[in-house]
Amino acid sequence: MASYNLLLLPGDGIGPEVMAEVEKLVGWFTKTGIARFETEKDLVGGCAYDAHGVAITDAAMDRAQAADAVLFGAVGGPKWDKVAYEHRPEAGLLRLRKELGLFANLRPAICYPALADASSLKRELVEGLDIVIVRELTGGVYFGEPKEIVTLESGEKRAVDTQLYTTHEIERIARVAFELAKVRRNKVSSAEKRNVMRTGVLWNEVVTRVHKNEYPGVELEHVLADNCGMQLVRNPKQYDVIVTDNLFGDILSDVAAMLTGSLGMLPSASLGAEDPATGKRKALYEPVHGSAPDIAGRGLANPIAMIGSFAMALRYSFSLVKEADMLEKAVANVLDGGLRTKDIAGPGVNAAGTGEVGDAIVKEM
Amino acid sequence: MASYNLLLLPGDGIGPEVMAEVEKLVGWFTKTGIARFETEKDLVGGCAYDAHGVAITDAAMDRAQAADAVLFGAVGGPKWDKVAYEHRPEAGLLRLRKELGLFANLRPAICYPALADASSLKRELVEGLDIVIVRELTGGVYFGEPKEIVTLESGEKRAVDTQLYTTHEIERIARVAFELAKVRRNKVSSAEKRNVMRTGVLWNEVVTRVHKNEYPGVELEHVLADNCGMQLVRNPKQYDVIVTDNLFGDILSDVAAMLTGSLGMLPSASLGAEDPATGKRKALYEPVHGSAPDIAGRGLANPIAMIGSFAMALRYSFSLVKEADMLEKAVANVLDGGLRTKDIAGPGVNAAGTGEVGDAIVKEM
Ligand SMILES: CC(C)[C@H](C(=O)O)[C@@H](O)C(=O)O
Ligand SMILES: CC(C)[C@H](C(=O)O)[C@@H](O)C(=O)O
Repeated sequence: MASYNLLLLPGDGIGPEVMAEVEKLVGWFTKTGIARFETEKDLVGGCAYDAHGVAITDAAMDRAQAADAVLFGAVGGPKWDKVAYEHRPEAGLLRLRKELGLFANLRPAICYPALADASSLKRELVEGLDIVIVRELTGGVYFGEPKEIVTLESGEKRAVDTQLYTTHEIERIARVAFELAKVRRNKVSSAEKRNVMRTGVLWNEVVTRVHKNEYPGVELEHVLADNCGMQLVRNPKQYDVIVTDNLFGDILSDVAAMLTGSLGMLPSASLGAEDPATGKRKALYEPVHGSAPDIAGRGLANPIAMIGSFAMALRYSFSLVKEADMLEKAVANVLDGGLRTKDIAGPGVNAAGTGEVGDAIVKEM
Repeated sequence: MASYNLLLLPGDGIGPEVMAEVEKLVGWFTKTGIARFETEKDLVGGCAYDAHGVAITDAAMDRAQAADAVLFGAVGGPKWDKVAYEHRPEAGLLRLRKELGLFANLRPAICYPALADASSLKRELVEGLDIVIVRELTGGVYFGEPKEIVTLESGEKRAVDTQLYTTHEIERIARVAFELAKVRRNKVSSAEKRNVMRTGVLWNEVVTRVHKNEYPGVELEHVLADNCGMQLVRNPKQYDVIVTDNLFGDILSDVAAMLTGSLGMLPSASLGAEDPATGKRKALYEPVHGSAPDIAGRGLANPIAMIGSFAMALRYSFSLVKEADMLEKAVANVLDGGLRTKDIAGPGVNAAGTGEVGDAIVKEM
């Protein structure tokens, strides 16, 4: 039986609750003998800060480096709003992304037919929506230097962030987008602000060249990031794969996620480069939703985004494609059966708890 | 009769067509003797490049500096896609903003009840929507240096843009937002990415201080820019005034505009600081929509956003508040009467032309 190393980082807020449901599935895999996941667990975010004074320890980073995949819950909450910038909960997530080299963030925005009415958009605009945002995750304004606040002689402060991209960084994320489009609807939309930003000019140039030289058979369009935000609201189904930088990807993927009405349902994968020697790539899987401190600890959270993230891990990190399909089907069946947490239950419907939904999914398997 | 200097910069695409309708209104004002607008006209954008090799000439800039207000149509189009970065059509607009010191961009997103069905959102979520995005317009990543593409020794290129904000820049835009909230629904939402960007940290700090010291009576909330994008889609009516930086403002205001279903209807104002000696401020007014090259020259464009921009000029630059109200009422009456350009006509309705709508509005006056 194949055996894999899984690091679980539940984090803060509803993170631990939704991660607990994944652990049930891990147990199911071991029991059935399909695959064995050796799990380790560690702290990240506010809980790591409370325990160790940092958002993630070096020891946890070592475990992440050694793992075949990392499952990440969520971080942050009002409790840590006053923590120093270097130690804020998000710093743990950013360190993981950067040091594991997870440059490719895949964020599907899928509208489940059963849930189309939960969208704020009209049903016909979102029903059957299935797009993926490919967000560059280790570059841009998130990591560029200088990144600082300095106090000027006048007493005024000046803050600087640096948006920085190289040819290489853009090439590799463009390839991820084109490869993905090939197994989907064969269309890539590249979003930048070339009319204002130099990084947008380079982005446009490199994506155009990768397309011409390596993927001429895939349809490519360029769209300004602000217009992309508009178009996502106007007619999201025009898109298949959207490739964009770290900061635009942050906003556009959140807009896209919210369109579906299924925020609690959406998983994401953050992938590194393939190691040429082993063929392996580092990977972290996390739900698109945040730590939702307002409902944490009450068994109300929807575990499906976290479970879907585990399904992505099965698919991308362990090549357990059949099992990933099976798990996604189990989720769909449970939804069709009408069992739903509060966020998607609809008015007047009796909502199920986090554990109930997790149990039902295991049972479906 | 008070006399004002108005510089008209129609620009490219549908710019000249929609500006022509404003000229009818200017004529009406002169004829009625309410106010006299001396208009001059000049080139900006692609047409300026074609004529002079630059996106705006120094002479046009001098006229803009001298004018009491600038009315701007739209710039850009595929024709100029290959023009060098420094001379691209948008450079004309950016130079105007920067050299006139137009740091405060007010972008109302209003959903006209008569048009609520044109929104992609469900009617109840947008009907009666009335929010304003206050976007910082002369700072941030739009203008920060270094801003360049360099070729490295390896042959790779590296592109850099610099996001930069000072205390002073944030203070003055925060004040604009708080002042506006005071005459509206008394709530300001400040959007940044303090969890990732140093400029976001400073933004948050300065807005908080201005609030505490100068506007404690106004409700203030801080929201992460990505979450703000989500919330705009989920429930836009939760907002009153949103204050944010140049780049986030670019995207969030486009998302907000699209929510209303009335993109062709939305005006905007870009204002400078008040001159302490004269009490005057530089100002530029422009529609939120772009140059729409696909329909340019065919008399199909909706002139209402441009006419609404003129109404904002009456209000903010000329203190002709009664007349601004009157003009806005005339627009509403024409809409209620059913006369509509193609973009808002709805299926099966006979659409009116640009000139017809303009004429009807003048007649209403
Ligand atoms: C938590 C935060 C640092 C993060 C980001 O900005 O990337 C989040 O918004 C996301 O999209 O994963
Ligand atoms: C035309 C372009 C430079 C401009 C911007 O990015 O500011 C436009 O998108 C806007 O929002 O006014």
